[in-house]
Amino acid sequence: MPRTNKDFDSRKEQLIQLALEQFIEKGYENTTITDLQKCFGLTKGGLYHYFRSKEEILDAVIEYGLMQETKGLIEELEQIPVEKKLIHFFFSTTTNAFTKNLFKYSKNNSSSIVTYRLREKTTKILVPILKNIMNQNIESGFYKSKYPDEMSEFSIILAQAITEAGMLSETDLDHKKKRIDAIVDMWSKCMKPPAEHIHELKMNLYKLISAEEN
Amino acid sequence: MPRTNKDFDSRKEQLIQLALEQFIEKGYENTTITDLQKCFGLTKGGLYHYFRSKEEILDAVIEYGLMQETKGLIEELEQIPVEKKLIHFFFSTTTNAFTKNLFKYSKNNSSSIVTYRLREKTTKILVPILKNIMNQNIESGFYKSKYPDEMSEFSIILAQAITEAGMLSETDLDHKKKRIDAIVDMWSKCMKPPAEHIHELKMNLYKLISAEEN
Repeated sequence: MPRTNKDFDSRKEQLIQLALEQFIEKGYENTTITDLQKCFGLTKGGLYHYFRSKEEILDAVIEYGLMQETKGLIEELEQIPVEKKLIHFFFSTTTNAFTKNLFKYSKNNSSSIVTYRLREKTTKILVPILKNIMNQNIESGFYKSKYPDEMSEFSIILAQAITEAGMLSETDLDHKKKRIDAIVDMWSKCMKPPAEHIHELKMNLYKLISAEEN
Repeated sequence: MPRTNKDFDSRKEQLIQLALEQFIEKGYENTTITDLQKCFGLTKGGLYHYFRSKEEILDAVIEYGLMQETKGLIEELEQIPVEKKLIHFFFSTTTNAFTKNLFKYSKNNSSSIVTYRLREKTTKILVPILKNIMNQNIESGFYKSKYPDEMSEFSIILAQAITEAGMLSETDLDHKKKRIDAIVDMWSKCMKPPAEHIHELKMNLYKLISAEEN
């Protein structure tokens, strides 16, 4: 009986889940392709049917995790008034177990290739969603900017810089708050939303970094 | 005869130079600690006298390269009028052969651990130099901002994002120019320098990305 595409995809999804478990248990760097082959219960040829390398497995794990995350997010965003979308976009938290585990692994292994590639792919997957939100808010007159697409790109990068370890120097909570004040001031000058929106943005960012500290 | 610290440091510098050559020749990922040991002409124990791991050798290579770069830069900056320092900081190019080779290797291997760690360390080494420039310009009244330190951090991160591959999606020259327009507009709103300065900044950034394209 011929194998269908659906069989292939659901088997691949299983393998991706097993791979993340293996990375968490052994560390990505210490996991060999033979380890993965064993934990998949596949021959070398069987594994290469799905993935060409360990790097490709990592990318598949990251893409799968981010897809789980954004699938729900996009659906939620459709139900939300336009001027509330940005706050939801930045501050809703993932409920997907796989994605949570991936983020947790990355957080515990900062300055590893997993964190770097996750960061890079997160930007690329989130920017289009934020661009869409920005442009809707420009159309409705809630934001004003000649550069909604570019401001979307910069906002994701800077949000990563102030909330994730590694991009900027380690610092204390007071200086982290000052970084937030500076970014929110910049945002206010460039996007000109109402003052309450800026306040809400700032309070949510404060909450986020205070939670990270604990 | 006891070995002095100076002997140790100059031998370590030699090893760092050999290590970069080896990484360029074989690729960082494909270079083993045994390869490095052989190319250093050292026993395993001899190598561990200088470095504890391949990762530590990479970090030493990157730090050495950035130190060569910034040593000259800091001296040059002292000779330059305060309102010209920022342009010099962002647009002077390295003349050091080691640093050039390191940057070239990184550019040819984007999305590799070398590029990621180089980016991370570059930020940390350049931010304090830019903070110094920003604060001098605030004192002289050339820039106006409540957040010179934070704007220094954000400027380095965003400069990397718009000039290096990998942080944002690949795009064409026109859109790269629009990113520059957006970042310069943001800078103008946040730092309030004279219009000629903003124009000079923009022209230099255009030149930089046009050169990168070729």
